Amino acid sequence: MYDIIIIGAGFAGYSAAIYAARYNLRTLLIAKERGGAIIDAAKVENYPGYKSISGFELMNKFEEHVKSFGVGVLIDEVVGIIRQEESFRIETRQNKEYQAKAVILALGTKRRKLDVPGAEEYEARGIHYCATCDGAFYKDKVVGVIGGSNSAAHSALLLSRLAKKVYIIYRREKLRCEPILYDRIRQAKNIEVIYKTNVVEVKGSEFIEKAVLDNKYNGEKELELDGIFVEIGSVPNSAIAKELGVKLTDKSEIIVNEQCETNIRGVFAAGDVTNTVLRQGLVAASQGAIAAMSAYAFITGRSVGGAW
Amino acid sequence: MYDIIIIGAGFAGYSAAIYAARYNLRTLLIAKERGGAIIDAAKVENYPGYKSISGFELMNKFEEHVKSFGVGVLIDEVVGIIRQEESFRIETRQNKEYQAKAVILALGTKRRKLDVPGAEEYEARGIHYCATCDGAFYKDKVVGVIGGSNSAAHSALLLSRLAKKVYIIYRREKLRCEPILYDRIRQAKNIEVIYKTNVVEVKGSEFIEKAVLDNKYNGEKELELDGIFVEIGSVPNSAIAKELGVKLTDKSEIIVNEQCETNIRGVFAAGDVTNTVLRQGLVAASQGAIAAMSAYAFITGRSVGGAW
Repeated sequence: MYDIIIIGAGFAGYSAAIYAARYNLRTLLIAKERGGAIIDAAKVENYPGYKSISGFELMNKFEEHVKSFGVGVLIDEVVGIIRQEESFRIETRQNKEYQAKAVILALGTKRRKLDVPGAEEYEARGIHYCATCDGAFYKDKVVGVIGGSNSAAHSALLLSRLAKKVYIIYRREKLRCEPILYDRIRQAKNIEVIYKTNVVEVKGSEFIEKAVLDNKYNGEKELELDGIFVEIGSVPNSAIAKELGVKLTDKSEIIVNEQCETNIRGVFAAGDVTNTVLRQGLVAASQGAIAAMSAYAFITGRSVGGAW
Repeated sequence: MYDIIIIGAGFAGYSAAIYAARYNLRTLLIAKERGGAIIDAAKVENYPGYKSISGFELMNKFEEHVKSFGVGVLIDEVVGIIRQEESFRIETRQNKEYQAKAVILALGTKRRKLDVPGAEEYEARGIHYCATCDGAFYKDKVVGVIGGSNSAAHSALLLSRLAKKVYIIYRREKLRCEPILYDRIRQAKNIEVIYKTNVVEVKGSEFIEKAVLDNKYNGEKELELDGIFVEIGSVPNSAIAKELGVKLTDKSEIIVNEQCETNIRGVFAAGDVTNTVLRQGLVAASQGAIAAMSAYAFITGRSVGGAW
C-alpha cells in the first residue's frame, strides 16, 4: 500500500513526486512514458533558471531529482483507477495492481490529429507531429506547419534551419504565439505564413506531394510540399479520470480548485490535464507541488508549514 | 514609458520579467535588493530541476535568465506608486520616477522580528535572523533557534554542523516543518527540541548569555546560550500596495485571483506577498508567469496562446 500514486511523468508528475517525497509519503510514480509533452521540444527557454535547454534534458533533470529522494518511477500504462473504501486500486496495461491512499493525476495532453482525407494514410510518410523528431528528414525540402500557437511557431523556426522553405498554414488572421517567436518568424527569410486557410486534404503517391487548401494561395488551391508538421493543439488525457467519476470541463479538462483538489476526495490533479489558467511547464510544476501538499494534508490530517 | 514595471527580484519578480520579455513588453524590474528571501538559504532542494543549489546561486541563474532577454534590473527602493489616468507613476528612494501601463507587485516578505526585552539591543550581538549569514560565528558554541517551520528546521540543521549544541525552542507541541527535515533533526545528535516554550527575554553583557523561557526546562527558567537565530515567520511587504488602494487579507497579504489580478485594474501581484496557497519559490515563479500573462492581456487586449 502506497500513500500516494502519481500518474504521469511530465512537469507536474515529477514535481508532485519531489514534494511528496519531501513529505515522507510512500510514493510511486507511474507513467506510460517519460517526460510528457515537453520531451520533443528542441529548446525550452522559459523555465526560469535554465536559459536554454532541450525538453529531453530538462525532464532528465527532473527525473534525477525525483530519484534522488528514492521514489520509484515505473513505466507502465494505467488503464483503470478503482475507488475502494479508504483507498484506490490502480490497474495497469501490464496487468499489475497497486494500492494507494491518494492519487495525483498528472496525465498531460496528447496532440490533436489532423482529421482530413489522406492524413492518417500518410502518417510518418509526410504527415508528422514532432518537428524535433522528424524534421531532419526535410533538409532542403519544402514543408508546411499547420497551426498558429507557440508549438507551431517553435516547429516552423526549427524547420526553417533545415528546410528550403517553410509555410505556416493557419486558419486565423494572426498567429497567436508569443511576440518574441513571431518576431523570429518574420526575421526568418524562408518562412511564409498563409493566413485564413485550412488544409482540407493531403495527396501523394508513396509520400505526400501536396496539400489541398480551402483558399487559393498564389492562384492555386493546391500547395506542393514534401512534408507537413501538424500543430493544431492538444487534448487532455482525461479518459481514466472520467471513468473514475472525476468532473471535467466541456474541453475534457479535469476541474481542480486552487488546492488542486478534484470533486473526489483523495484524488488530486495537476498540469496540462487540468483547467489551468496557463499551459506552461512552470505552472504545471507548481500545481504538482500544490497537489502533493493537498494529498499530504488529506492523508495525515496535518497542515503544511510556511517558507521554503 | 514602460509597458510594465515589476517590483521585486525574487522567484516571482524574475519569473514575471522572463515572461514579460517573451511577450515583447517594454519591461523594467526594480528591486531594493537582489534575490528575495531565498538568497540566504544555504541549500534549496525543492526547485525541480536543481537537486541541490544555494539560494544565492539559484537567484543568480534567474537574474542571468532575465538579462538574456535584455530586461533592465534596477536596484533601488520603490517608495510610492501613484495611479494616473492610463498609467502608474513609480517613485523611488533615489528620487527617480518611472511610468508604466501596468505594475506587477512581487514584493515578497520580510522576517518577523523577535519582540521581547533585549532582542533589539542584542541584534547582531547574539540575536540573528540568518543562519547562513551568521552561523559561522558559533563554531563549537551553544545556540538556540526560535520557531518550528521549514526555515527554523533548515537553520537548526545548518547550525548543528557548526555548533556544539542546538536548541530548537518552539511554542507548539510539534514542529510544522516537512517530515524529511524533521527526520534529519531527529538524527542529528546535537539538536534538542524544547516544545511549548517561548523566549520571553534575552539577557547578557556585551553579547547575549541567556534566554529567559516561559516554561521550566531541566528545572530552570533560564537557558544559557551564546546565540539565538530567530525564525518566527515573515510578514508581507505590502505597505506600498496598501497605500495604492490594493486590497489585503487580515495578514496583510495582497489578495489576488487565479489570474494574479488585484482589485485595481493594471495592478497584478505574485509570490509570497500574496494570499498564495503554498509559500514556495516554485509556486511564486509560476504566479510571476501568470501575472505577466495577465498584464500582457491587459495592455494589448490580446489573449495568450496554448502549449509552451
